[in-house]
Amino acid sequence: MTNLLLRNIGELVTNDPALGDGSALGLIRDAALVVEAGHVVWVGPQASAPVTDVVQDLGGRAVIPGFVDSHAHLVFAGDRASEFTARMAGKPYAAGGIGSTVSATRAATDEQLTAQVARLVTEMRRQGTTTVEIKSGYGLTVTDEARSLAIARAFTEETTFLGAHVVPPEYAEDPAGYVDLVTGPMLQAAAPHARWIDAFCETGAFDADQARAVLTAGGAVGLGGRLHANQLGPGPGVQLACELGLVAVDHCTYLDDADVEALASSGTIATLLPGVEFSTRSPYPDARRLLDAGVRVALASDCNPGSCYSSSLPLCIALAVREMGMTPAEAVHAATAGGAAALGRVDIGRLSTGARAHYAVLDAPSYVHLAYRPGVPLVLEAVGR
Amino acid sequence: MTNLLLRNIGELVTNDPALGDGSALGLIRDAALVVEAGHVVWVGPQASAPVTDVVQDLGGRAVIPGFVDSHAHLVFAGDRASEFTARMAGKPYAAGGIGSTVSATRAATDEQLTAQVARLVTEMRRQGTTTVEIKSGYGLTVTDEARSLAIARAFTEETTFLGAHVVPPEYAEDPAGYVDLVTGPMLQAAAPHARWIDAFCETGAFDADQARAVLTAGGAVGLGGRLHANQLGPGPGVQLACELGLVAVDHCTYLDDADVEALASSGTIATLLPGVEFSTRSPYPDARRLLDAGVRVALASDCNPGSCYSSSLPLCIALAVREMGMTPAEAVHAATAGGAAALGRVDIGRLSTGARAHYAVLDAPSYVHLAYRPGVPLVLEAVGR
Repeated sequence: MTNLLLRNIGELVTNDPALGDGSALGLIRDAALVVEAGHVVWVGPQASAPVTDVVQDLGGRAVIPGFVDSHAHLVFAGDRASEFTARMAGKPYAAGGIGSTVSATRAATDEQLTAQVARLVTEMRRQGTTTVEIKSGYGLTVTDEARSLAIARAFTEETTFLGAHVVPPEYAEDPAGYVDLVTGPMLQAAAPHARWIDAFCETGAFDADQARAVLTAGGAVGLGGRLHANQLGPGPGVQLACELGLVAVDHCTYLDDADVEALASSGTIATLLPGVEFSTRSPYPDARRLLDAGVRVALASDCNPGSCYSSSLPLCIALAVREMGMTPAEAVHAATAGGAAALGRVDIGRLSTGARAHYAVLDAPSYVHLAYRPGVPLVLEAVGR
Repeated sequence: MTNLLLRNIGELVTNDPALGDGSALGLIRDAALVVEAGHVVWVGPQASAPVTDVVQDLGGRAVIPGFVDSHAHLVFAGDRASEFTARMAGKPYAAGGIGSTVSATRAATDEQLTAQVARLVTEMRRQGTTTVEIKSGYGLTVTDEARSLAIARAFTEETTFLGAHVVPPEYAEDPAGYVDLVTGPMLQAAAPHARWIDAFCETGAFDADQARAVLTAGGAVGLGGRLHANQLGPGPGVQLACELGLVAVDHCTYLDDADVEALASSGTIATLLPGVEFSTRSPYPDARRLLDAGVRVALASDCNPGSCYSSSLPLCIALAVREMGMTPAEAVHAATAGGAAALGRVDIGRLSTGARAHYAVLDAPSYVHLAYRPGVPLVLEAVGR
């Protein structure tokens, strides 16, 4: 079997604290890495690298694990650029704007939706993302949710059923009826195409009891649970997620002490989505507070046409450092190992022996440049999917 | 002579208010544009486009004038990633950090400096910048300033002599002697390679009298004047720039009412550099206040290894909208027509008849996406230099 040696890696982020400098990033300078059959089979200082069939010289560039974007809404049609412009002129963001994307998505053909997902996955890849979670949630009928997930499944194993995104207009007078639909026929149709189930627990979307019903129903058919919570204001979602032992709870913008304590004493990961706060001109979540309390943090894009039409993990890293008190090392770790943990994955988000060879080569000597050089497209190549 | 028709432009930003929707952007939907001999020879609705030799179909994408980055420091060696990390951990930015780049730049070969400029100009181009101003200012000896400008001149006509960047260590005890050097032998050696002269008028760099002496000396040998002012705190620079009738004064972060009034009643353009505030975690300049007072505003990158190692005008646009009260239209105008005006240019920064055909094709249906999709590399192609 052919093996490939990546040599002359100026700085290698392994995310294995047993390696290199012993930090959480497991940083090795002047490193090399051997790939065989899509996996990392050796990693270490270049000076002791084994002989291989093929050699690629990276010219001193930095290599990091591919970004794991654990929160993205890519199956939709249309855009909401004019809503964005209005918001920047002072109109506040509200969950209801999702309705316009639902109409456009329902009206789109499978081919149009597939092309849109393909375009965004390609765009993400150019920015270093090698794994992306993709949610449904703009169909909100049995048929449209199932087809959204079937389309997403062609691009990733990490598909998430988000029938409980908002109550669609036709159920405006009967939200309980909509929850019955989501937990009944819609879940049955969606489950074969999904790994996860999710709900938007927020004023204007679903309350804690409704979210609990959705997550419980999903769990009963074998879907892992995750939750949108505490994005637009304080709420019960974060504590609900911890109580249910979900792998991740996402947004976490408005947290009180009890929320932070619940996160710290649970295994639930707080996934922060700073592109949303950037694009809605909202206060950023306090990552420093979470990290200092011992909470495990992930960074993800939340790429969607309403609250954050950015697919850029490098931007999230720069924002996490500028606005949320994370160090560049913590931010890069959160966008790689953090995202992997938020998907319950141990085979990605790291570059040590046995991991999948999912990595990004930076046109920079250090991972720090992802924060130091904001906005600059620094990913030269992303490998693995 | 061969002419080229760009057809199926979903949205064309001409920056000519006599065209299209009559706004400052002179926006034409479903537009076409004809290029001949590097210039725009026709622009208008696609339905009335003339017949040409060659046709390129843009598939409904938006086309904007290439970005004109009127403030960049690209001739340097080394990077200051560790200074950045320390700053993000709480250490404040100070002008003195420039010294470490001066040492590295003096030690670099011409080839190394040329390669660095080439790399950054290429990176800028991939992000839509078709014209860039390049300053010296990391040499600070007669020889090193002259060679910095000679190297820059190979990449742009818009070269700026910035001997008055900071007082170098060897003149620490004799700043007046350094100003004599800058206005004497250094200016003589630099002037053949420069179009502009600039000074950093700030506590820790040069005071108003010193800046005035530098600008006056430059003017006497035919160099246009521009000034760094009011970046780190209030100061006399903005009013000095207006009094001297400079084409532009850059940073403008700390302004009092008299500064705004001086700008509004002069022809001097306020060039805002929000990448610096992002990268130094400083308060952003109040663009809204300036625009409402009738001040003309440009956006530029200030790409440099210390206070802002970003070359991204799209990021500047997103920040101007998110943080500085500009609309997406105002921000795109400021990064194109504004930058051109800040360089005294009427042949770029617009796409109407007679202009140079310097443009960027966006992988998006509207210029609004530059703010709506922060961090995403949306420039598909940049043409013209």
